[in-house]
Amino acid sequence: MIIRDNPSAFRLFFVMQGSVLPRILGKIGAVALLTALVLLVDAEVTLLPHVSMAALSVFGVALSLFLGFRNNAAYERWWEARKLWGGIIADIRSLGQQMAAFSENREDCRRMLHLAVAFAHLHRGHLRGADTRADAARFIDPEEAERIAARLNPADAVLHRMAALVGEMARAGRIDAYARVALSDRLGQLALTQAGCERVRSTPLPFVYSLLVRRTTYLYCFLLPFALIETTGWFAPLFTAVVAYVFFGLQAVTNELEHPFANVQNGLPLDAMCRIIEVSVAEALGETPPPLMQPRNHLLT
Amino acid sequence: MIIRDNPSAFRLFFVMQGSVLPRILGKIGAVALLTALVLLVDAEVTLLPHVSMAALSVFGVALSLFLGFRNNAAYERWWEARKLWGGIIADIRSLGQQMAAFSENREDCRRMLHLAVAFAHLHRGHLRGADTRADAARFIDPEEAERIAARLNPADAVLHRMAALVGEMARAGRIDAYARVALSDRLGQLALTQAGCERVRSTPLPFVYSLLVRRTTYLYCFLLPFALIETTGWFAPLFTAVVAYVFFGLQAVTNELEHPFANVQNGLPLDAMCRIIEVSVAEALGETPPPLMQPRNHLLT
Amino acid sequence: MIIRDNPSAFRLFFVMQGSVLPRILGKIGAVALLTALVLLVDAEVTLLPHVSMAALSVFGVALSLFLGFRNNAAYERWWEARKLWGGIIADIRSLGQQMAAFSENREDCRRMLHLAVAFAHLHRGHLRGADTRADAARFIDPEEAERIAARLNPADAVLHRMAALVGEMARAGRIDAYARVALSDRLGQLALTQAGCERVRSTPLPFVYSLLVRRTTYLYCFLLPFALIETTGWFAPLFTAVVAYVFFGLQAVTNELEHPFANVQNGLPLDAMCRIIEVSVAEALGETPPPLMQPRNHLLT
Amino acid sequence: MIIRDNPSAFRLFFVMQGSVLPRILGKIGAVALLTALVLLVDAEVTLLPHVSMAALSVFGVALSLFLGFRNNAAYERWWEARKLWGGIIADIRSLGQQMAAFSENREDCRRMLHLAVAFAHLHRGHLRGADTRADAARFIDPEEAERIAARLNPADAVLHRMAALVGEMARAGRIDAYARVALSDRLGQLALTQAGCERVRSTPLPFVYSLLVRRTTYLYCFLLPFALIETTGWFAPLFTAVVAYVFFGLQAVTNELEHPFANVQNGLPLDAMCRIIEVSVAEALGETPPPLMQPRNHLLT
Amino acid sequence: MIIRDNPSAFRLFFVMQGSVLPRILGKIGAVALLTALVLLVDAEVTLLPHVSMAALSVFGVALSLFLGFRNNAAYERWWEARKLWGGIIADIRSLGQQMAAFSENREDCRRMLHLAVAFAHLHRGHLRGADTRADAARFIDPEEAERIAARLNPADAVLHRMAALVGEMARAGRIDAYARVALSDRLGQLALTQAGCERVRSTPLPFVYSLLVRRTTYLYCFLLPFALIETTGWFAPLFTAVVAYVFFGLQAVTNELEHPFANVQNGLPLDAMCRIIEVSVAEALGETPPPLMQPRNHLLT
Repeated sequence: MIIRDNPSAFRLFFVMQGSVLPRILGKIGAVALLTALVLLVDAEVTLLPHVSMAALSVFGVALSLFLGFRNNAAYERWWEARKLWGGIIADIRSLGQQMAAFSENREDCRRMLHLAVAFAHLHRGHLRGADTRADAARFIDPEEAERIAARLNPADAVLHRMAALVGEMARAGRIDAYARVALSDRLGQLALTQAGCERVRSTPLPFVYSLLVRRTTYLYCFLLPFALIETTGWFAPLFTAVVAYVFFGLQAVTNELEHPFANVQNGLPLDAMCRIIEVSVAEALGETPPPLMQPRNHLLT
Repeated sequence: MIIRDNPSAFRLFFVMQGSVLPRILGKIGAVALLTALVLLVDAEVTLLPHVSMAALSVFGVALSLFLGFRNNAAYERWWEARKLWGGIIADIRSLGQQMAAFSENREDCRRMLHLAVAFAHLHRGHLRGADTRADAARFIDPEEAERIAARLNPADAVLHRMAALVGEMARAGRIDAYARVALSDRLGQLALTQAGCERVRSTPLPFVYSLLVRRTTYLYCFLLPFALIETTGWFAPLFTAVVAYVFFGLQAVTNELEHPFANVQNGLPLDAMCRIIEVSVAEALGETPPPLMQPRNHLLT
Repeated sequence: MIIRDNPSAFRLFFVMQGSVLPRILGKIGAVALLTALVLLVDAEVTLLPHVSMAALSVFGVALSLFLGFRNNAAYERWWEARKLWGGIIADIRSLGQQMAAFSENREDCRRMLHLAVAFAHLHRGHLRGADTRADAARFIDPEEAERIAARLNPADAVLHRMAALVGEMARAGRIDAYARVALSDRLGQLALTQAGCERVRSTPLPFVYSLLVRRTTYLYCFLLPFALIETTGWFAPLFTAVVAYVFFGLQAVTNELEHPFANVQNGLPLDAMCRIIEVSVAEALGETPPPLMQPRNHLLT
Repeated sequence: MIIRDNPSAFRLFFVMQGSVLPRILGKIGAVALLTALVLLVDAEVTLLPHVSMAALSVFGVALSLFLGFRNNAAYERWWEARKLWGGIIADIRSLGQQMAAFSENREDCRRMLHLAVAFAHLHRGHLRGADTRADAARFIDPEEAERIAARLNPADAVLHRMAALVGEMARAGRIDAYARVALSDRLGQLALTQAGCERVRSTPLPFVYSLLVRRTTYLYCFLLPFALIETTGWFAPLFTAVVAYVFFGLQAVTNELEHPFANVQNGLPLDAMCRIIEVSVAEALGETPPPLMQPRNHLLT
Repeated sequence: MIIRDNPSAFRLFFVMQGSVLPRILGKIGAVALLTALVLLVDAEVTLLPHVSMAALSVFGVALSLFLGFRNNAAYERWWEARKLWGGIIADIRSLGQQMAAFSENREDCRRMLHLAVAFAHLHRGHLRGADTRADAARFIDPEEAERIAARLNPADAVLHRMAALVGEMARAGRIDAYARVALSDRLGQLALTQAGCERVRSTPLPFVYSLLVRRTTYLYCFLLPFALIETTGWFAPLFTAVVAYVFFGLQAVTNELEHPFANVQNGLPLDAMCRIIEVSVAEALGETPPPLMQPRNHLLT
């Protein structure tokens, strides 16, 4: 995630970080070139058929609505993903409060909360396709870490381990029956959030939208020059380039926000959020917390 | 569900999988043909009445808004359906955690979780109109499976069976009164999700929208050629074909997403999600999990 | 609710069931006639003032947005109503599961669930303004039915009766204190859903919208002919008729969906949903369930 | 709230009740007059500069979107407010059910539910800035009513009083520990709903929107005549009047719905909802309920 | 937050408070100047290329949609932030009710609720980057205040302290096991709300939107004069100035609402809301409440 103030009007056009411009420059160039070619052929070689701008504008409105819809859907995925991680942070903090309210056994508290941190790291690894075993291993037994990492869904395995610990504490009489229910509910909440994250990661927007919207954008940009022939001179290529920037740009943004857990510039800062969890847990246990992550070159991973 | 990367600009126009193009090619052709005919008659036979493009553009904006609304509604149904199944996965995992926290009886755990897997399979069968009794029978007693399959709503019957098991465990003293409430709450959650899925399946978008939007689309495509007569030459049929592609295409997408449980290319991968549940349950019970399903030819069923 | 496949392109224009066409045919005719008159007067009698199409198109966009907003709001009411009834189905099923988990007394189970069915029937009657006492009386004591029917809100009275039964079971020791809380929570959920349905029924969309949107539609259709004079000949009446169909049609759809509980073609099938509840309860009690309702002539009431 | 059927096409234009027309008639007249003046000056005195209609139409689309956004936000506030009050009705009914399930002491039931009715009345008074102490005093002790009315937030004070009563009942052994938790949860729910209503009342839409949208509407209506000069004759003033009606009308609707608790024609019928609560409580206590409120001259307050 | 009635039509254009006009006046002037320059060069020096207005209008619709999307997202953040704070108010009131229902120990009540007020103040300080330790110190022990303020997340530390107090009360037998669970749930709810606020504060809208929308706005305003050349005379600069006001204005509004906790004119009145909490707590404890905050010069901070 990029954290920076809005650049001034002048610098705005030179900021490349977080911009999708580099990725779509080729397409923009191609559209501008096509326009120049159409103008040239129309003027020098043979009269090309014209499309009335009014006709194209209906098309443009429809395209705007489709892009708008897809963008909305992608942004909502992104924001839902952020909400889900916010929920994980809150649930782990609540777990710490519950342990403080229900248990007097410091070792139980430590084990439970360290398992929760390991859950966060392994969950992040699962979502990003990254290897976070080393991060998790700082909080759980090496052997147990090995066993858990061998599972198809390690984060789920940690939650199961936490549930077993709840059962163990209850059977040993270190917490009462009420606490067992309350802690178990909290774990159920974490399982729900985890499944929510997996849903966002594993279910992209329907592929058919991608086809429909991208094809429509290409067709629009191909037809546009024929509608702009009446506008004379060197302005037409510039104009089509600007339109291509708007439409291809929004499409590229959508593609990036559609996968909120990916480790890209506009993705969610899962590393930083896991660190927030580490801090909360450390403070809850009275240990020295690690420092919060700071954006590097405006970028928080 | 189709799982594949976005095709490159060139290949984009030749990807047929997941595309709605094959289904609407006839309509697109008819619209192009009509346009050619109108042009021909206007040029050779008799002057046809013209519709001003500006007039048609209001119509086009209205149509875009209607299609956009219907598309939004269909997508929300699709995403809600996905959320509901994500909830089923989470609830069954939580059930496993609860059994780990509340019960020491391995056989109870196995019976309860296997019933949950059977629930998922029978629920899937109910939603898809498919016969999933064989899948369910791997997890429950053959006789019981027979009895359950005879019910009008087998998935509901399995939930009821699970509730009876909760009562049985409590009365036999294998779980305490708190666990009985907690497990019963979890089953209530599953019943809610199940009813949500049935709602999405049994209540399509109001039929009247379908009539209104489809009729409007046909009328628009019929009037469009008369507005394009002023655009000379062979471009008009191409243009109407493109517009027909956009409008009929969005309509076909909507029709497919409206039924998220159907076993179609853009439908939800219920088989794969049932497998995820099998894996979670197997890992919770310490059994060897089956492998996760992989997309075949980019397709996950 | 109409349950049928999408008609083919040809049959589409002759399907009248579920269509709003019959209701708005008069308005469409009036608009077409007005247009013909305007054309005639302009051509034969005196030059009428023209409205530029571009000016009217802003008006058209605004109108589309208003109609779109109202349509959205009406559809959301309809879908929320469906969700609420889905919640009632789920809650009554959960109630059955809870009784199975918490009670061993078959008579209690039967009384409780039969009261729930009576609740559903009386609630449906309240929402539809229909007399459903006969349906409810099949599930409760005749005397009690009489007393309940005399209340201003019979469905609420049944819920209260169920709460009293919960208290009775608890005081007689047939369920424990935990079950009392759990069953009471379920009844609270039913009360919430019931109040939600009453909200949708008793609070239509603000009347002022109806005035604003309908007046605007009439004004638009009145001004449209003056903008279409430039389009020659017999096409203008056809075109205004089509536009009137789109705008008046959407308005008629909205009016129907705004009242989702009314017993109309596009209303919710409350009768069929009550039958689903009867089936679920019968299967939960081990009784022979009645058959599910089937659409008659594509219509489910 | 206005409760009436949709007027017929003819009567539609003469219905003034609930209409915003009276309030914006002055603005509409001013716009029409300005248009006539512009036409006159342009024709008789000096050629005025013209604005191309196409240019203005972009402006019109933007304005439609802003008005549409603000309208959406206002309607959602209105509907959320209605949902919150529906929640209050449901919660008070549930409270009655809980008392029936948990308590055998009729006097406790009566005191608790009468406090709830007083809560509804005082809450209504707080939201409307009205004096509802007389209504509340019918349900609580005069002295207590006096003490409560002296608080800054009387409704909150009643909830606190109810919580104290819960504690009293529990300490006296008239309800058990489970009931204490359940009743306390219900009060927590009421507190949440109450805070939600206060939120809607005390936080209007950001003032900056009001400025932006109103200024834009005025500017649009001021520029419109210059774009309509080309449209000859007496039609231009009529046309601008209609456009002004649409834009100022929507704005006036928004202003009214933005404050859903105000005692205006399109506001929520808080009086009638408090009466529904009185009826429910009376029926729950076996007392004779007052009659439901009927709309007077189509108006329910 | 600005609290004032809508100004009259005339005064509307002179209200500067809460307006974004001062901040965008430079940009508006620049656009007007550019337009004048383009007109001058076109008329006196050399014929400049023209852009057809119809072409630009597609661009304008797209821009309106993007700005509309971003505005929607920002407003939803603002309203969600308000909901979260409303939830904090409700939860602290509920906490007071729970203490009244569960505890007879006045000192416990006082300590718990004073900690809650301190939580609200420290949370506000965290969100605003302000030093609120003095406000919090009025409600907690000076030493404890010092220790808490040293934490990375002081608000979280207070919640943890409250959880420890719950544990202490339970272990000392001053509340029973049920109360411990209920109070602990309430704290979990507060932790969730707190994490929600942190989410809104720490996760702005994706930076890429800002780039895309702002660049598009600049490009649009740069191209507009070339489309307006055909509109003669001094009207063009006025017109572009108005369009610039609309587009840059909406952008400035969005920027302000995007950060709902910032201490700006259109930000949320966190100070006033903390005061509401102080009042509720004082009245719950039977202490003399401080006066509610009143807007100063229409401004509530």
